[in-house]
Amino acid sequence: MLFDKNQIHTLNDQALPDHRESFEYLSHRLSQRSIQVNELIKKIREFQVAIPSWALGTGGTRFGRFPGGGEPRSLEEKITDVGILHALNAGSGAISLHIPWDIPDNVEKIREHAAANGLLFDAVNSNTFQDQPDQELSYKFGSLCHTDARVRQQAVNHNLEVIQYGKMLGSKSLTVWLADGSSFPGQMNFRKALQRTLDSLKEIYEGMPADWKLFVEYKPYEPYFYHTVIQDWGTSHLLASQLGERAYTLVDLGHHLPNTNIEQVVATLMMQGKLGGFHFNDSKFGDDDLTVGAMKPYQLFLIFNELVEGMEDPRSANPSPAWMIDASHNLKDPMEDLLQSVEAIQLAYAQALIVDRAALENARDSNDPVLAQEILQEAFRTDLRPLIAEARLQSGAALHPIRVFRQLEVRKTLVGERGTKSLATGL
Amino acid sequence: MLFDKNQIHTLNDQALPDHRESFEYLSHRLSQRSIQVNELIKKIREFQVAIPSWALGTGGTRFGRFPGGGEPRSLEEKITDVGILHALNAGSGAISLHIPWDIPDNVEKIREHAAANGLLFDAVNSNTFQDQPDQELSYKFGSLCHTDARVRQQAVNHNLEVIQYGKMLGSKSLTVWLADGSSFPGQMNFRKALQRTLDSLKEIYEGMPADWKLFVEYKPYEPYFYHTVIQDWGTSHLLASQLGERAYTLVDLGHHLPNTNIEQVVATLMMQGKLGGFHFNDSKFGDDDLTVGAMKPYQLFLIFNELVEGMEDPRSANPSPAWMIDASHNLKDPMEDLLQSVEAIQLAYAQALIVDRAALENARDSNDPVLAQEILQEAFRTDLRPLIAEARLQSGAALHPIRVFRQLEVRKTLVGERGTKSLATGL
Amino acid sequence: MLFDKNQIHTLNDQALPDHRESFEYLSHRLSQRSIQVNELIKKIREFQVAIPSWALGTGGTRFGRFPGGGEPRSLEEKITDVGILHALNAGSGAISLHIPWDIPDNVEKIREHAAANGLLFDAVNSNTFQDQPDQELSYKFGSLCHTDARVRQQAVNHNLEVIQYGKMLGSKSLTVWLADGSSFPGQMNFRKALQRTLDSLKEIYEGMPADWKLFVEYKPYEPYFYHTVIQDWGTSHLLASQLGERAYTLVDLGHHLPNTNIEQVVATLMMQGKLGGFHFNDSKFGDDDLTVGAMKPYQLFLIFNELVEGMEDPRSANPSPAWMIDASHNLKDPMEDLLQSVEAIQLAYAQALIVDRAALENARDSNDPVLAQEILQEAFRTDLRPLIAEARLQSGAALHPIRVFRQLEVRKTLVGERGTKSLATGL
Amino acid sequence: MLFDKNQIHTLNDQALPDHRESFEYLSHRLSQRSIQVNELIKKIREFQVAIPSWALGTGGTRFGRFPGGGEPRSLEEKITDVGILHALNAGSGAISLHIPWDIPDNVEKIREHAAANGLLFDAVNSNTFQDQPDQELSYKFGSLCHTDARVRQQAVNHNLEVIQYGKMLGSKSLTVWLADGSSFPGQMNFRKALQRTLDSLKEIYEGMPADWKLFVEYKPYEPYFYHTVIQDWGTSHLLASQLGERAYTLVDLGHHLPNTNIEQVVATLMMQGKLGGFHFNDSKFGDDDLTVGAMKPYQLFLIFNELVEGMEDPRSANPSPAWMIDASHNLKDPMEDLLQSVEAIQLAYAQALIVDRAALENARDSNDPVLAQEILQEAFRTDLRPLIAEARLQSGAALHPIRVFRQLEVRKTLVGERGTKSLATGL
Repeated sequence: MLFDKNQIHTLNDQALPDHRESFEYLSHRLSQRSIQVNELIKKIREFQVAIPSWALGTGGTRFGRFPGGGEPRSLEEKITDVGILHALNAGSGAISLHIPWDIPDNVEKIREHAAANGLLFDAVNSNTFQDQPDQELSYKFGSLCHTDARVRQQAVNHNLEVIQYGKMLGSKSLTVWLADGSSFPGQMNFRKALQRTLDSLKEIYEGMPADWKLFVEYKPYEPYFYHTVIQDWGTSHLLASQLGERAYTLVDLGHHLPNTNIEQVVATLMMQGKLGGFHFNDSKFGDDDLTVGAMKPYQLFLIFNELVEGMEDPRSANPSPAWMIDASHNLKDPMEDLLQSVEAIQLAYAQALIVDRAALENARDSNDPVLAQEILQEAFRTDLRPLIAEARLQSGAALHPIRVFRQLEVRKTLVGERGTKSLATGL
Repeated sequence: MLFDKNQIHTLNDQALPDHRESFEYLSHRLSQRSIQVNELIKKIREFQVAIPSWALGTGGTRFGRFPGGGEPRSLEEKITDVGILHALNAGSGAISLHIPWDIPDNVEKIREHAAANGLLFDAVNSNTFQDQPDQELSYKFGSLCHTDARVRQQAVNHNLEVIQYGKMLGSKSLTVWLADGSSFPGQMNFRKALQRTLDSLKEIYEGMPADWKLFVEYKPYEPYFYHTVIQDWGTSHLLASQLGERAYTLVDLGHHLPNTNIEQVVATLMMQGKLGGFHFNDSKFGDDDLTVGAMKPYQLFLIFNELVEGMEDPRSANPSPAWMIDASHNLKDPMEDLLQSVEAIQLAYAQALIVDRAALENARDSNDPVLAQEILQEAFRTDLRPLIAEARLQSGAALHPIRVFRQLEVRKTLVGERGTKSLATGL
Repeated sequence: MLFDKNQIHTLNDQALPDHRESFEYLSHRLSQRSIQVNELIKKIREFQVAIPSWALGTGGTRFGRFPGGGEPRSLEEKITDVGILHALNAGSGAISLHIPWDIPDNVEKIREHAAANGLLFDAVNSNTFQDQPDQELSYKFGSLCHTDARVRQQAVNHNLEVIQYGKMLGSKSLTVWLADGSSFPGQMNFRKALQRTLDSLKEIYEGMPADWKLFVEYKPYEPYFYHTVIQDWGTSHLLASQLGERAYTLVDLGHHLPNTNIEQVVATLMMQGKLGGFHFNDSKFGDDDLTVGAMKPYQLFLIFNELVEGMEDPRSANPSPAWMIDASHNLKDPMEDLLQSVEAIQLAYAQALIVDRAALENARDSNDPVLAQEILQEAFRTDLRPLIAEARLQSGAALHPIRVFRQLEVRKTLVGERGTKSLATGL
Repeated sequence: MLFDKNQIHTLNDQALPDHRESFEYLSHRLSQRSIQVNELIKKIREFQVAIPSWALGTGGTRFGRFPGGGEPRSLEEKITDVGILHALNAGSGAISLHIPWDIPDNVEKIREHAAANGLLFDAVNSNTFQDQPDQELSYKFGSLCHTDARVRQQAVNHNLEVIQYGKMLGSKSLTVWLADGSSFPGQMNFRKALQRTLDSLKEIYEGMPADWKLFVEYKPYEPYFYHTVIQDWGTSHLLASQLGERAYTLVDLGHHLPNTNIEQVVATLMMQGKLGGFHFNDSKFGDDDLTVGAMKPYQLFLIFNELVEGMEDPRSANPSPAWMIDASHNLKDPMEDLLQSVEAIQLAYAQALIVDRAALENARDSNDPVLAQEILQEAFRTDLRPLIAEARLQSGAALHPIRVFRQLEVRKTLVGERGTKSLATGL
């Protein structure tokens, strides 16, 4: 670790009086509303969001990339960085690997390093949207959907290999983001491509250990610009239903057409017991790269409102979804960006937890949209930041993660160790 | 009939030399490409698009309505108008009724009048998105999804009544466009609303005769502006799957979020054997009202390309979809608008029929998007208007329907009969 | 007035202890940040949002309308309703009239009634998007842009007449929302239509008193669905620039294409000194009807952030914009909806006022987007509702307007007076 | 040249009988409509579209790039490739350079090589959206808008240098696509950024030779994802107006929010005499990369309809716009893609030229949208491909450029010369 946990505690101590004041006031007000503050804090502390290994480096666009310094040069250093984040916020206790970028040289050492940082290995991710230097056949025209059976087999084998790496490290799920698609009308036979994709996914599904889950992501476009084989939740759900019980849909916030009611999609999937995973980010236009909560925090809250409703429904058959941040850090320091992201997620989760559900259902039953809005906004408008800070404090993390990150000069230390020109493997 | 068929023939005769020249040239060119022109004409002649009864009057927006004259004042006059269209284009040989706007006083007379005009009764449509003057309970907050069981029962009963009217007239399907939804976050419980909708639809499904089909339409928004219970094809497909074999998804071209790849949705639904019906219109923004083919004729062709591929696939389990125009004629003369619509549909259908499918599959198999585009555009760029005209000619209809409509002064006659202030029942 | 001000005070008294606690805490925290709470309250109290006369009745869509009861039946009753709102929130001290819906029979009486309710007359609005029963020429194909000079003259004359009514009542500005446009490619000559519009607007501009302003609204579509003559801020700005110094652009939040950066438009217009007015509402899809702040409260805050920056810039040449709510109340009680709207606007305004502008400019100058986001969200996340309540309290209005509206059974009283079938003039 | 012009002629000879038949028929039909076919061909032959130097290599996305072989390795080879295209289609007689990718080592030699290929040098393009290896200051946070005056000066100097290269080669205009913007709310001060941009552009404008034009491009987003300094035509027009007479707006088809009525923007800009240049591409979603005409050919026609109307208006003050293709060739062979692009542009131009403008104006004057649509679609539906082929034939180019490109095995030859791993400089 680049810093001693005591350094965090010392900095916390300086901020403590101010925190105490605001937390006590908030506790008092929440208690007045019959909210169990301790229960709330417990849930927030248990909520962990995975950090993808490729998020630790500076991202870019097709027009270029403006790298910062001190980026991790290896899987080990990526784990170190997530460990730092987790030490600061106690909310990012898992890392999600991407193969082939993160093939471990020494599995045992990697597992130990992760354990020392308090990290689990979340879903593993395959990559059939790029050609690797030594790759036999190209994915230029698709992978699992390719017209050529050999390309499909190569892509299936890659996924099976990813599962093997995941098994070694203790992952329990595979996320397939299938970029496959076409850029021009006529280029691909929609139905044949979907059928081939289903057949390929079946092979992968069969190759998973019995306690693994398969997450099928969807996206309307990019990197192909006319058609994506798995364009929407409906298509993903169709595939997941035909694959089997342990296949689920994965929702990435940024992978929707303009104005999509994502919270409704979430509710429908949970109702079917088919929401497997969630990727967080935010966007204003046709991208999926910005810090979650930076653009549409109310929408994030509304989505969490559905997630909480689904998770707390005793009759729900939906397993607890896998949570991961999936953004691209082009301008902000990636680690600061991730700290902001986790905080925004925790905040939305906490806001959803304090929604007065009984009153809301009453308002709904009496068709009173005015009151329903008041109830939701009461939860959203309440300033819950002291609660999140308290949860961190109780977990031994920083009251103000970004402030501490800057006070401890973490980035400067990393640049000192790794140089200004280090380059993270990944995008 | 307002005019004698001979009047059409006389006007055709004037246009015949010009038509002959262009049709012969086109025939010759198509034959060079080994296209069976007679087969093509046969298919076009057989293709019939239903006209909804509410399309014969001037439509409007929430800001107002600028009515034209001579609008039909009764179901009988609506049938008369569709009869005129069918006499002119031989391609609109069915009418689709909307209850309660079109409750027949005298079933036998209505059937005879339709038969005399060569018209069948297509799908019947229910209306639970408006309150009727004598209605007991309001649909302000939904119908089949309503929180109040009595409202749901009223809406179910209405649908069952619609089926009865349809049976009397010879319809074989019911289209449910369910406007139900909410306009504010929190207003409705997404999951409960969907469950209630499913339960209500089950009652309706059970109440259909054994040879009927149920078409479940979807729409992302309007008249509710935050959430529609059946927001997309995925939700409609979910419902149709759970309802049973004779429940299908209905696609309305205008009911999609910006940039949706509709042709892919069509292909996926046909692959599942679940595309039941199709509503034609066009749009540039968030409406669904313009003349089909007026804005994106190439997209219309691409959609027909999938429809033809699905319909001609011998392994396909998808029944022949029900075709209907569903637009609103705010500015154009409704009848002229419908003539333009049917022609645009026939043209797109014909273009899709002449696509060199074998060559296209070859281009796809060799991942040649340049060639695939050339093949599609070859079909789209070919001027097939003489073919459509010939199909009409062979069916005894007008070579140039709109021109004849104007030459025969049909609107003037209708205004003379019905007045300038007649008002069509409907929207 | 339907109720005595003392009734408000009595209800306030019950809520006072709770309010005192939360306001004192907030004051304390804001003071710690060196924010002058009294200054803040003063600004909030001064900020007044006009209520349009047509917002007091239930709105609808082209599919229908589900009226509530007790709607105002006359201009006088509309003023009464706004008076009630203003008594409750002390923030809606103006009414904006729409001609011909609100032609005053007795100007003096109307002025007195408004004054008694503490209301001013804001911008007057003309209507050339509908045909009135006695109207000579139709606006079906446009008004100020019409191909026929007589229609243009009729529309110009109508606007001049609207100005006369406004003068009588004390208005100082005219808002022109020009619906003019076309629904089909080819229908209208874009350039000629724009030229004719400019020429018509010139006549209106010339007809305004010397101390009046002209606000030119823009909208991308609806009621026409292919082209609107004034489709965007660029076109409105072009017209306003060519009209003269007292012509301005009016921004309606709902009149933008998906994803438009509206706050940037606001900033640019203020930089040019050309932002004249603002219409508030919210939307998720292609509508412009929902309660402002119900869908995207963070965007609303970002827009106010620009407005405040522009208003507080001493070098800015932009006059203080005219503020108005412009939504349609289809499901909520219109008066409750308006109370929610005003509160959301005041909240966003207050949040923008507490942005630490010096720190923000520092973060910008050092290109620190992480910090910039922290600064903005610090303002947005702070729960300022007690501040707004305090402002109301100091102005003698209700601590909790909607609660009081319900406690006093205002709607019930109105229904008793006006009946359940009263119908507001307007949309 | 990789092939002899005679090879083209030989291949033309084989296709000639078929061409003759179709062209003669088309000529005959057009003549019946009183269209001067020779005039038409003359205009098409004169119409030249510039090819940007960076379009000759395979493009990619942020997710990767799948290069083809035989890509040009130098400016000279890029000119060679455009020369091949121009030999094949006689419609791409200009090249548009990008500095620093295309800095000529030997100006004289480059000029001679271009002349030998019949090519002119169109607008030069600057690049301040990427950091070059030896660059002193970074453009990570903007260039012409940067908060740091030194960065702005560096960017201005770069543009002045680009002008110098352009002068040497005979260009007469500079295109500034300014990527500058921000990705997070609060990051940038909108007004200050716009002001700094204007000031920087003024320096560049002043540095242009007196016979040069400056084209100011706009784009709503990407590579920044919240705000672009020049986000829309309105902002570009504002800048161009304030810069001076020789500053113009440049429209790139792909740089618009969903559903924008681009043809109206074109009409408005031409009306103001401010449309300077045009970049062609097509898109379905939020990209700007596809072959022009591949997705929305009717929209392309509607845009050309405005362009032709503006160009043929004797009172128009708008200069002839600069035409350029600006797409990214990720999947198709770049040269084949460009051949398809030029053909699609020529086709849309020709369709616009045969619009019966007198009849259209009549239909408009009588508010007859049915007839207006018929007139436009008459032009669009007419299969004008033989006309374009004839124009090429008369210019000594290929009847079927892509077919000839394949028959002559141009790509194979280029791969032989340049290798499979050649990499075009550029994106």
